[in-house]
Amino acid sequence: MKLCGFEAGLQHPFFLIAGPCAIESESLALRTAEALRDICARLGIPFIYKSSYDKANRSSGQSFRGPGRDEGLRILEKVRRETGVPIITDVHEKEDVSVVAEVADVLQTPAFLCRQTDFIQAVAAAGKPVNIKKGQFLAPWDMLHVANKAKATGNDQIMVCERGASFGYNNLVSDMRSLAVMRQTGCPVVFDATHSVQLPGGQGDRSGGQREFIPVLARAAVAAGVSGLFMETHPDPAQALSDGPNAWPLGRMESLLRVLQQIDHLVKEQDFPENHPEELA
Amino acid sequence: MKLCGFEAGLQHPFFLIAGPCAIESESLALRTAEALRDICARLGIPFIYKSSYDKANRSSGQSFRGPGRDEGLRILEKVRRETGVPIITDVHEKEDVSVVAEVADVLQTPAFLCRQTDFIQAVAAAGKPVNIKKGQFLAPWDMLHVANKAKATGNDQIMVCERGASFGYNNLVSDMRSLAVMRQTGCPVVFDATHSVQLPGGQGDRSGGQREFIPVLARAAVAAGVSGLFMETHPDPAQALSDGPNAWPLGRMESLLRVLQQIDHLVKEQDFPENHPEELA
Amino acid sequence: MKLCGFEAGLQHPFFLIAGPCAIESESLALRTAEALRDICARLGIPFIYKSSYDKANRSSGQSFRGPGRDEGLRILEKVRRETGVPIITDVHEKEDVSVVAEVADVLQTPAFLCRQTDFIQAVAAAGKPVNIKKGQFLAPWDMLHVANKAKATGNDQIMVCERGASFGYNNLVSDMRSLAVMRQTGCPVVFDATHSVQLPGGQGDRSGGQREFIPVLARAAVAAGVSGLFMETHPDPAQALSDGPNAWPLGRMESLLRVLQQIDHLVKEQDFPENHPEELA
Amino acid sequence: MKLCGFEAGLQHPFFLIAGPCAIESESLALRTAEALRDICARLGIPFIYKSSYDKANRSSGQSFRGPGRDEGLRILEKVRRETGVPIITDVHEKEDVSVVAEVADVLQTPAFLCRQTDFIQAVAAAGKPVNIKKGQFLAPWDMLHVANKAKATGNDQIMVCERGASFGYNNLVSDMRSLAVMRQTGCPVVFDATHSVQLPGGQGDRSGGQREFIPVLARAAVAAGVSGLFMETHPDPAQALSDGPNAWPLGRMESLLRVLQQIDHLVKEQDFPENHPEELA
Repeated sequence: MKLCGFEAGLQHPFFLIAGPCAIESESLALRTAEALRDICARLGIPFIYKSSYDKANRSSGQSFRGPGRDEGLRILEKVRRETGVPIITDVHEKEDVSVVAEVADVLQTPAFLCRQTDFIQAVAAAGKPVNIKKGQFLAPWDMLHVANKAKATGNDQIMVCERGASFGYNNLVSDMRSLAVMRQTGCPVVFDATHSVQLPGGQGDRSGGQREFIPVLARAAVAAGVSGLFMETHPDPAQALSDGPNAWPLGRMESLLRVLQQIDHLVKEQDFPENHPEELA
Repeated sequence: MKLCGFEAGLQHPFFLIAGPCAIESESLALRTAEALRDICARLGIPFIYKSSYDKANRSSGQSFRGPGRDEGLRILEKVRRETGVPIITDVHEKEDVSVVAEVADVLQTPAFLCRQTDFIQAVAAAGKPVNIKKGQFLAPWDMLHVANKAKATGNDQIMVCERGASFGYNNLVSDMRSLAVMRQTGCPVVFDATHSVQLPGGQGDRSGGQREFIPVLARAAVAAGVSGLFMETHPDPAQALSDGPNAWPLGRMESLLRVLQQIDHLVKEQDFPENHPEELA
Repeated sequence: MKLCGFEAGLQHPFFLIAGPCAIESESLALRTAEALRDICARLGIPFIYKSSYDKANRSSGQSFRGPGRDEGLRILEKVRRETGVPIITDVHEKEDVSVVAEVADVLQTPAFLCRQTDFIQAVAAAGKPVNIKKGQFLAPWDMLHVANKAKATGNDQIMVCERGASFGYNNLVSDMRSLAVMRQTGCPVVFDATHSVQLPGGQGDRSGGQREFIPVLARAAVAAGVSGLFMETHPDPAQALSDGPNAWPLGRMESLLRVLQQIDHLVKEQDFPENHPEELA
Repeated sequence: MKLCGFEAGLQHPFFLIAGPCAIESESLALRTAEALRDICARLGIPFIYKSSYDKANRSSGQSFRGPGRDEGLRILEKVRRETGVPIITDVHEKEDVSVVAEVADVLQTPAFLCRQTDFIQAVAAAGKPVNIKKGQFLAPWDMLHVANKAKATGNDQIMVCERGASFGYNNLVSDMRSLAVMRQTGCPVVFDATHSVQLPGGQGDRSGGQREFIPVLARAAVAAGVSGLFMETHPDPAQALSDGPNAWPLGRMESLLRVLQQIDHLVKEQDFPENHPEELA
């Protein structure tokens, strides 16, 4: 599948979706986009910059939500113009789809909303590529129906994204089988290595996270075989206004990407035997 | 809490929210509302009629969704006028809230949407009582934040509803501890005895269900102690256009309610020791 | 099924298995057995005294394990002689079966060991009634095979016992459907209301527990319908040498049993519709 | 840690524990041991041959269990003598420990038994290296206590092994975080790539399995970083007498090991940032 000018798929090197969880300021957005662009250019990794204008589903009503749609889109557009990187951002209301699609190169839908038929179809119908996050409550094979709903709009640039499955209370588990199962959708499969280490609601009025497991899960997922990788990053995670506990330090991004890229290259040189289960009998 | 003219709470007999999952036709709606009204009148159970005008999150894009908002509201209004029962229906788009709130006596929000701050607040701001379903991905103590978001609009007629927690793939488990934990919200706690027996996505392109466990879970929940009970019912579940596998047969509703009412009466005559954990040391 | 001189089954009032988790001392054992015997006599509840001589699977190697087999059996025999109550205790080694079976009226097998074929059959072959605890890792329908292994020894006095299922890490959930599913074994189904509120390993080097949920789960299980109830109790749970956090205070046992007995009486006066799923179509 | 003459640990290439689940016959044992020995010799992978003499915890009492202890040990000894490979086998009774330890170079303990203090200590006390499988019901951090119990016997050649965690009914999930968490035991961490794809009890009277996910999970685990890999294999899995659905075809072992070895080499050339969480703040 063609995506923002590069090829996305299991037979191509992984692309990276990365950026701070929320748009905290114009300067932070520009700075992180440039830094990530330069890292990815050095490594030869296709890159899409991600940041959210509105965190619409924070645990508490008191939490920071972002600059809002219009100011957020203004900043994202500037990021794109000044750094030249394609932009992905998430949309959570049907009414926002068209105005967001004017700015964003790729749209993303939140995990909690993956079963809202009208919403998924409204986003897909905007004609931009869409990254659909799998609900924490959904079996991986059930993403086939979600992807098919999206494709029924005529949009064939659909991606599906694993971000952890509910595992008891206030915990998620990343089932690596899911990355293979979701290939049956025919869509590029993306692994979100940072939300997968969230502890939802684990700090009472906000979600916790275990940053140290990001490299563990990212290495595992790339070795399992993915088309894309999603990672939230921040120059100073402890000061991040949203999802800091599960953000990866920007200063450590290049070293992590380097090992992931090597694993990716290695596994994609070979066959994936799981894609031919009938030969394993 | 006052609700539709009766008292709702752990110190009062349970109220019933019941009806067919989807509005299949005007005649079915009228017929089921009358039947349920008469059963509840005989038993002295406060009753609110429930049916949905749009099933917005079916597994497959091909499934029956209902008559749509306007025709659905017309039917619900007629049900209310002709049978005299209060009406609850679920809303899944901010833009529908005001027009639905004109007809419905109580609004309900879907489990998948329980963390969408704007949506929950838009529904609560309509000023009608709201039944907030707990997400399958949420710990029961995290409903405190959800309820607080809703109450922050000034609406103090908020209910919280357990409908099962994700338990592996394509299965839900009803944690009876949840019914006690959610009392800490200060809101009446409702148990949804029919969605709790769903097997989400368990039939490939639709959700399955295990109807035979409805009475098991309903008895257990009432004995654990609830303010309200939610049950989808149908005169002929095998022919239901939505969620038939987890609908309770209308013809068996009275006998089931009778035993539930007896359990409810019995447990509410006593103290609930779990409400005073400090005395159990 | 005949058990210790009373009738056990869904059509009979529940029997109680209760006592302190571990045999802490002869005097505590005698005192608790007398107290429980007297409570159950007042209420008319068939009673079997439970206490363990060896806690063989504590989280930490440093924890209190009990008086050991021989001293423990001496105390249990004295309890039985002096109070006249039948005794149940758990065995965890094949080599102990015969000597324990000489003293105990009923044998119990630990949840972790429910799949050890030789062990289960060695216990069943002793000819005493056996209460088989379901593994935290087992689906309720899989207890059919476990029960059948036990019955294959010719022993038809087999009980199966729910004590919670693994639900993420350090947590258990009590699936009330399990109590109905396990009826298919043909064995009396017992609910363990105190281990079900354990938080396994939840305090680092020992298991935690949430005592306040004992009455919630016990009421729910009795309303779901059980043949027997299992509860660990202690005159002073805070001082208990084993499993204190999930022990029910002895001083509150009678009031809890009273409400459970009433629920039990009520639900067993009616039919259990879940036992005839074919009629619910 | 020194193990069977090679070095085991995160800073060394992974070792392989492999063989058919059960000892089906002397000739199969010899044939598979030779084949695996030769593959591992070509690749330079330290190898320990695994097969069980008794499957003591089959779902059904009717299933094939193996040749029994004495005949099984005779075959394993012959395998060792004729092929020169070290032997690992699992023991499930205290009384068997000493006789098994005479033949086996490494002992293994079953997952269900990981919390049986006496059993774990009896096995560790035999003085041979021990591979302790983590219970499906255990959090990874709780293996610290299990390992400490084993080490308390004076044996410091203890390994810990992930083989999947309970995830709803009849399913396991492999949490790759576990492989990092268990490093805190100080023991080499092993990943069991074949039992992790079991569907426990998933075929009614026996466990199912999803062979096609073996390479997915094995690649993921090696990329996460392990000291050892455990895989059951069979020349003709469809004809295997035990655990065929989750056995990897012997004929495909070399190609799978080759890619795993490359991933292993690659990730161990770098630092594991998760081992220094304090630097990630």
